[in-house]
Amino acid sequence: MSVEDVVAAIAPADPVAGEAARLRHERLTKPPGSLGRLEDLSLQVAAIQRDECPAIRGKAVVVAAGDHGVVAQGVTGYPQEVTAQMVVNFLSGGAAISVMARRAGVKLLVVDAGVATALPEHPELRVVGLGRGTADMTLGAAMSRERAAACVLAGVELAREVAGAGADAIGTGDMGIGNTTASSAITAAVTGRPPHETTGRGTGRSDEELAAKAAVVERALAVNSPDAGDGLDILAKVGGFEIGVLAGVVLGGAIERRVVVLDGFISGAAALIAHKLCPTVIDYLVASHLSAEAGHRLALSHLGLRPLLDLGMRLGEGTGAVLAMGLVEAAAACLSEMATFDEAGISGAESAD
Amino acid sequence: MSVEDVVAAIAPADPVAGEAARLRHERLTKPPGSLGRLEDLSLQVAAIQRDECPAIRGKAVVVAAGDHGVVAQGVTGYPQEVTAQMVVNFLSGGAAISVMARRAGVKLLVVDAGVATALPEHPELRVVGLGRGTADMTLGAAMSRERAAACVLAGVELAREVAGAGADAIGTGDMGIGNTTASSAITAAVTGRPPHETTGRGTGRSDEELAAKAAVVERALAVNSPDAGDGLDILAKVGGFEIGVLAGVVLGGAIERRVVVLDGFISGAAALIAHKLCPTVIDYLVASHLSAEAGHRLALSHLGLRPLLDLGMRLGEGTGAVLAMGLVEAAAACLSEMATFDEAGISGAESAD
Repeated sequence: MSVEDVVAAIAPADPVAGEAARLRHERLTKPPGSLGRLEDLSLQVAAIQRDECPAIRGKAVVVAAGDHGVVAQGVTGYPQEVTAQMVVNFLSGGAAISVMARRAGVKLLVVDAGVATALPEHPELRVVGLGRGTADMTLGAAMSRERAAACVLAGVELAREVAGAGADAIGTGDMGIGNTTASSAITAAVTGRPPHETTGRGTGRSDEELAAKAAVVERALAVNSPDAGDGLDILAKVGGFEIGVLAGVVLGGAIERRVVVLDGFISGAAALIAHKLCPTVIDYLVASHLSAEAGHRLALSHLGLRPLLDLGMRLGEGTGAVLAMGLVEAAAACLSEMATFDEAGISGAESAD
Repeated sequence: MSVEDVVAAIAPADPVAGEAARLRHERLTKPPGSLGRLEDLSLQVAAIQRDECPAIRGKAVVVAAGDHGVVAQGVTGYPQEVTAQMVVNFLSGGAAISVMARRAGVKLLVVDAGVATALPEHPELRVVGLGRGTADMTLGAAMSRERAAACVLAGVELAREVAGAGADAIGTGDMGIGNTTASSAITAAVTGRPPHETTGRGTGRSDEELAAKAAVVERALAVNSPDAGDGLDILAKVGGFEIGVLAGVVLGGAIERRVVVLDGFISGAAALIAHKLCPTVIDYLVASHLSAEAGHRLALSHLGLRPLLDLGMRLGEGTGAVLAMGLVEAAAACLSEMATFDEAGISGAESAD
């Protein structure tokens, strides 16, 4: 399967089911519109599932990890081996995403999408064999175009796997020392905003370090001149392995007609790539939260997505996605399981207001 | 037990446990502060539970229903019998709160705090026997001061009961045709803001109806002149039975050192009463969401509370509280269950940033 085949396999969500759900909402035992954005969310899930009574039963989060050659430019305060150490932490249950996924009944699938340090084998770890970290994007492309396509296709397969195992909602999550730098470059390339606007503090940079980081993004873009109309070109030149895998998860989720719940900034960059490859994916996307990372707002605004949560989080790992899945589940359940006025024998409003 | 005894039984949360939790957060395997407001929330839960490793195990929502004599002034578009019909709907599982509580594993306790229409008996329904709806507050006090105290004490007992049954987080919820009008009056009386600022559209009023509703609130305040320094006086003169019960739930939750998760506007009015009676309750309060109802922002701002969610909801019933409980639970779990850098053998940041 090629990336073109993937794109061709994605159909829009079903507006007929969405409209049927809207009409159903009017009959449910509550004042019209009183569930606010949960109602819109439930219509989206109905359209995705082609069912006016949708349900989120299984939930999964795909957390892709990868390393970044650009760390040689001093863009981050953590050593590169932290990527691998955190993958081990995900698997042993000690990371924030491990705790949250466990609590919320969300299946956690951890992916070595190109971690520089060798990882021990683990039954819950998928290794997709893309390399041991990208090249330094300030010196040339982060990866070849072929490798970028391989990332995306690997992500598609992972999404199809978790969908096949029963996930109605698929969250995206990331780990990768240096990946806010790549995401800033992608966000700048896609949105056309300057690097100083798309670059944030990541895990914690001083004002000087932040300016230096933005300059690194600027240099990467100048050296590579990614084609703003070509998602694979942007991914190859200034992206990352885990970002490509997550773009594939978005596409694969859309093929399988699953709700794709985006985490924060890195997932947003992956969604920009996926959307560039196939604008129809927008029908399947839910923005879980607004990251404190500066570029995320620009990415979501470009996609026309409004985040459900705004809690000042900036951890990644899929933590925002898992938190928001509870809202998606509640929204779908209210639409499908609430009684109508007729069923409950409840008087309606006296006036048309 | 008198209301004075209740107030005397409330102790502040424990700042020592909160500080221990803050230090623990610095050692957890994530960049400092990267869980944003979830970190603050977890410190609050630690201080409430006097434990740097807190947990939200059991969850309950107390949904109090009551009727309002002020509906005679035409402040709402729904007939009064809807209050009783909705209580039946709560109990038979068809209301939004029923669906959400079931999905989220939250125990639902429904309380007849003074519904005008007779209700059938039901094992899950508590009847606290306060009356069959309040008097019309535009003609005099909604209830006597003794009745107001009885409401509060009934709520204290309900909170102690669910706490005793294992609820670490107690949500508040309401049902009552006309209760946004009473809540607008309470919010005006406590905050000193004019009725046209504290009055919203409730279940859906036109511009003209909204102006008339604000005038009703203004008249109720003029007729009763509630004492802004006396919570029981405000509750008696312009409150409601269910609002008094919820104020008691807040106080009882604080006595029992439980996290009290406030729903929207009506719960906010109840919290204003509870806070007026005992300012220390603030340590125990979490604002789940910002209601679309206009006065809610003023109530939260008066209390210095910042809502976790802002989804344009305005249903009441405890729906916002139940949604936010998942966030509270996740916050506490991350604090208590995440690995520290030492435990996970993970390298820290290279610099102090």
